[in-house]
Amino acid sequence: MKHFLSVEHMTKEEIIALLDMAEKYRQDEYELTKQVFSANLFFEPSTRTKMSFIVAERRLGIEALEFNTENSSMKKGETLYDTAKTFEAIGADVLVIRHESDDWADELKDRMNVPIVNAGAGKKDHPTQSLLDAITIYQEFGSFDGLNIIIAGDIKHSRVARSNAQMLTKLGANVYFTGAPDFMDDSLAYPYVTMDEAIEMSDVLMLLRIQHERHDQFSSSTVNYNEHYGLTIEREKKMKEHAIVLHPGPVNRGVEIDTTLVECDRSRIFKQMSNGVYVRMAVLTTQLLKWGIIHEHDIKKRNSTFGGQPVTKMRSVN
Amino acid sequence: MKHFLSVEHMTKEEIIALLDMAEKYRQDEYELTKQVFSANLFFEPSTRTKMSFIVAERRLGIEALEFNTENSSMKKGETLYDTAKTFEAIGADVLVIRHESDDWADELKDRMNVPIVNAGAGKKDHPTQSLLDAITIYQEFGSFDGLNIIIAGDIKHSRVARSNAQMLTKLGANVYFTGAPDFMDDSLAYPYVTMDEAIEMSDVLMLLRIQHERHDQFSSSTVNYNEHYGLTIEREKKMKEHAIVLHPGPVNRGVEIDTTLVECDRSRIFKQMSNGVYVRMAVLTTQLLKWGIIHEHDIKKRNSTFGGQPVTKMRSVN
Amino acid sequence: MKHFLSVEHMTKEEIIALLDMAEKYRQDEYELTKQVFSANLFFEPSTRTKMSFIVAERRLGIEALEFNTENSSMKKGETLYDTAKTFEAIGADVLVIRHESDDWADELKDRMNVPIVNAGAGKKDHPTQSLLDAITIYQEFGSFDGLNIIIAGDIKHSRVARSNAQMLTKLGANVYFTGAPDFMDDSLAYPYVTMDEAIEMSDVLMLLRIQHERHDQFSSSTVNYNEHYGLTIEREKKMKEHAIVLHPGPVNRGVEIDTTLVECDRSRIFKQMSNGVYVRMAVLTTQLLKWGIIHEHDIKKRNSTFGGQPVTKMRSVN
Repeated sequence: MKHFLSVEHMTKEEIIALLDMAEKYRQDEYELTKQVFSANLFFEPSTRTKMSFIVAERRLGIEALEFNTENSSMKKGETLYDTAKTFEAIGADVLVIRHESDDWADELKDRMNVPIVNAGAGKKDHPTQSLLDAITIYQEFGSFDGLNIIIAGDIKHSRVARSNAQMLTKLGANVYFTGAPDFMDDSLAYPYVTMDEAIEMSDVLMLLRIQHERHDQFSSSTVNYNEHYGLTIEREKKMKEHAIVLHPGPVNRGVEIDTTLVECDRSRIFKQMSNGVYVRMAVLTTQLLKWGIIHEHDIKKRNSTFGGQPVTKMRSVN
Repeated sequence: MKHFLSVEHMTKEEIIALLDMAEKYRQDEYELTKQVFSANLFFEPSTRTKMSFIVAERRLGIEALEFNTENSSMKKGETLYDTAKTFEAIGADVLVIRHESDDWADELKDRMNVPIVNAGAGKKDHPTQSLLDAITIYQEFGSFDGLNIIIAGDIKHSRVARSNAQMLTKLGANVYFTGAPDFMDDSLAYPYVTMDEAIEMSDVLMLLRIQHERHDQFSSSTVNYNEHYGLTIEREKKMKEHAIVLHPGPVNRGVEIDTTLVECDRSRIFKQMSNGVYVRMAVLTTQLLKWGIIHEHDIKKRNSTFGGQPVTKMRSVN
Repeated sequence: MKHFLSVEHMTKEEIIALLDMAEKYRQDEYELTKQVFSANLFFEPSTRTKMSFIVAERRLGIEALEFNTENSSMKKGETLYDTAKTFEAIGADVLVIRHESDDWADELKDRMNVPIVNAGAGKKDHPTQSLLDAITIYQEFGSFDGLNIIIAGDIKHSRVARSNAQMLTKLGANVYFTGAPDFMDDSLAYPYVTMDEAIEMSDVLMLLRIQHERHDQFSSSTVNYNEHYGLTIEREKKMKEHAIVLHPGPVNRGVEIDTTLVECDRSRIFKQMSNGVYVRMAVLTTQLLKWGIIHEHDIKKRNSTFGGQPVTKMRSVN
């Protein structure tokens, strides 16, 4: 049975199916008719990804168990495997895991009896982030074919860069990297452009967060980062009329992007976050369906038994 | 559209309407028929206020998102604005915020698309605390007209003192301050009485907590605080027969009040906490109604479709 | 009215009634038809016990309030009593408490108006752990009469040892202790056997976790602990064919038990955890019934109004 661990092994058809389901969840409210538990095991600080998963779960009526490493038996030296197995034993139907190790899934994937969803693996993978970026692009352009998507910034320390480059290439886009030479990663085979080339050619400019917390010391290349490699007011003016700007958040205001541009017309930064809830709903239900924990008839429109009119609740932002 | 931020701009009619609605929630169980999310963003330690909001939300069937600053992206340097905007983007219908800054609401109030409820702002405002104090007094006396209400203690560092003096004056009570000279605040224009005068004249004696955590060093005036400025066994005996004692909690036992008096006949300390849930239910639904997120028909008596008999569940205390 | 505090004052009949109810909860899904709040106050780190209680509550539809000492008013110096009373005041129908003190319940038991459930008291009591061990043994052997149950390890620092020895003796089993001499407790009057005797005679070998966090310094007796006092691969082979191995978790792999044996055929370590949810559901509903907070007719099969077929959701493990 398959976990949801990385973009690498997903087909284009699987990705499109998830985006379609997410779009369905964006347009109507659905809930599960049976009780399902999700364990959200976050071993790294997170606001938006963790809360996004929890909102996704609660919208579906899934019980959201929250694991707090500070008050847990990890303090007593428990391993990731034993923690995961504990949640399985007490009734978790799905495990949502973020951990600083690139390869945390290796010791779990063949030994768990419930699906695992990757909510961030070290510097390697962040597949639900890629889905929310992809759906935001899809909503904008209706297609990925031939789009120039430039991923800008701290490539070397970014799981977002890796996952997104893979997914967007599969979907038909042209993916480029740009950024400070220190932040590039030779092991990733995507063409490199300068920031000024990126500004001119991009349909989608995807800024990455400088991962201060993953740098031993702040690189000299980040001095005047905004001026050299960030989205300044001047650069924004030179972008194609229809081009959009993405950022996975949290934004270092004034570093990757001028603070006045965070909510500019071409920014989709908060729209991405809204979309994150829908793609996570899609991933969770898809995994629960695959593993036979729920069936299609367990998913119903919310309030439909009361003759109510389900509405898209979430406010549109950006 | 109006947020719920301070007592200052509320009219007497608005306050009374909230107290009436709170009383309705005290007498019967109600819940919302549509799914609503509240984000509870507490940037200062809190037990009773945070849990009181969460209980208020869950009684109404509202999904209560809890934000834990320790495990969040605040660790990555995210601003209050970006955190709030993130919760709005992922689907929060209302933001409940406590922050150590007096003026945290300034950067949010014109930029959010959902209502904000102030759960404590620095040393300045704590409007839901004032409502729970007011309803407790109202339940006791049936009116505020001409009541002598003495606020005793650490006025200078207390958002409760400020908010309560404003609200209770609006409602028709005579508000006085008492306490150690070091703790007084010249900018607040309420008459000052001695502790012994306060004991004799008060219908309501409202003790404040010494805010150890807001003092750089413990003031010399707190040595023998109980003897000089606290409610001792001797002082309690001299109070008017019908007079009641309030305290916002947590109590410093033996400092503001003798430990044996915390649950004495005239103490309403734990009753206040019970009332806190009802006033917060009233504030939340009022804001959700104002902003059109719910409508009157979305609020229904709990279990009423089953012909059940809704009952006041909460135990009476004090 | 009676709280659920210790094994000591429970009768055999009460224990059996709880095990029977737990078994009912294992076989079908039940939920309460009225809204009930549980406050889970954990003053010591815990994963499995806390999450097990929360899952037990959510399976029953009970609102699970979580108290986080890090972000609470305990930081402002609030006492356990005042914290507990606060939760009672804001609407908790039951308090689930773990605290490092052996006797934390003493100051609460006569002063609370809601039932208290002990989720761990210092080195003294852990009654729900004993119930989950007992039900696991009962599922295996169908009876306790004449079973040889050996409790192995850090007896002196273990609340599990104390509670289990009491309960299993009441139920008819023969209880023995084994382990390093430094870890024995002369105040507990159970026969002592060597580890090799234990291996040969036991029907149930109950390993205890070395409580590193309760040792001032790691005892010299824990050097080569596994070899001298732990379950090694060699020892496991010498056990009776039908004998089972228990451990309350979290396991110190390679110390109390060889890491390859944690999920061996005779291990019931994860099955115990699954059972923990059911016994806690039984304890919670029993207390709520005793105190008149719910009545028998408030407990109904989940989904039964929809004609659905309730199923045992929890996966069998081990």
